Amino acid sequence: MNPEKLSVIRQLIFSHIQMSEEEWNNWSRMFEIKVFTKNEVLLKPGDICKSIYFVNSGLLRLFFVDKDGEEHSFHFSMENTFAADYESFLKKSASDYGIQALENTQVICISHKMLDQGYAYLKEGQKLGRILAENYFFLFSNKIKSYYTESPLERYQSLEKFFPGILQRIPQHYIASYLNISSVHLSRLKNA
Amino acid sequence: MNPEKLSVIRQLIFSHIQMSEEEWNNWSRMFEIKVFTKNEVLLKPGDICKSIYFVNSGLLRLFFVDKDGEEHSFHFSMENTFAADYESFLKKSASDYGIQALENTQVICISHKMLDQGYAYLKEGQKLGRILAENYFFLFSNKIKSYYTESPLERYQSLEKFFPGILQRIPQHYIASYLNISSVHLSRLKNA
Repeated sequence: MNPEKLSVIRQLIFSHIQMSEEEWNNWSRMFEIKVFTKNEVLLKPGDICKSIYFVNSGLLRLFFVDKDGEEHSFHFSMENTFAADYESFLKKSASDYGIQALENTQVICISHKMLDQGYAYLKEGQKLGRILAENYFFLFSNKIKSYYTESPLERYQSLEKFFPGILQRIPQHYIASYLNISSVHLSRLKNA
Repeated sequence: MNPEKLSVIRQLIFSHIQMSEEEWNNWSRMFEIKVFTKNEVLLKPGDICKSIYFVNSGLLRLFFVDKDGEEHSFHFSMENTFAADYESFLKKSASDYGIQALENTQVICISHKMLDQGYAYLKEGQKLGRILAENYFFLFSNKIKSYYTESPLERYQSLEKFFPGILQRIPQHYIASYLNISSVHLSRLKNA
């Protein structure tokens, strides 16, 4: 595998744990690179999430479907961030979320086997798992706080603040769905 | 310390990781038992959360305050569950949540120092931290799913289903706040 494709994830992992070059070489061999085309669905709600995806380039949308069959956009994963139904992945249970590519997207896939081997053989594998889970937790915790404390306009502005340029890359109806408002309401917000 | 007070948390920890009696004896010595009286505030929003609390008996309410000064009940921690602003605890940052005792409550406190020592000296300390973070993540993930997919009535029924008897122990206005509906709306739900 072209090591350049792993350079960002390598840097991220090495910023969190100590790992020898030998450990890295043995373990990173298990990464898999996949490419998805715009609009392709990586994970269907109801399937087991078999990979954690790290976005090398492109953009993913996480969504779920409510009982009335309506889709709700829940999160957008930009370059150099992760995407998964992490609960489905960890528990090997049916996923609640779906994941769709909003652009042609290149991802690095981390499989169950790879995570298990990391726990078993990397000196600081458990620590890496802890930090991954903690960061997932921070992400969700912040989402909950924003639901309670921010208006749709503030949540719209937060999206742009944390991921500059993202609003130009996402179709408007997905942004409206993310904010839990109608497309008409979103247009009014943007014009105000 | 009376070992009986630690029996449930001990059992919980031993269900997740391997630990020798010697490790347990050295580490568990650092647990601290505290008692809070009904309505007492354990953590004020804005303070750093200095403990993870494990509820031995009683009931805690987690809440936060929005920019208009309005309190939102966010979670209720029953016997044998944890309570903390886990993000504030891990990052040593100002907490967004507050924690209040809704009944006279006995908690086991886990300090930063105790967690750090656990990571450093327990053979499976990092694994324990990973599992704790994963379970926090599952809790928050389920809350988000329920916001998107469940009606207030379904969320009311879920509370009772997951924590039988809890609805009788919480003042109505806190339940209404948890469901993000008015007290009048809650009365209508209960009568329907």
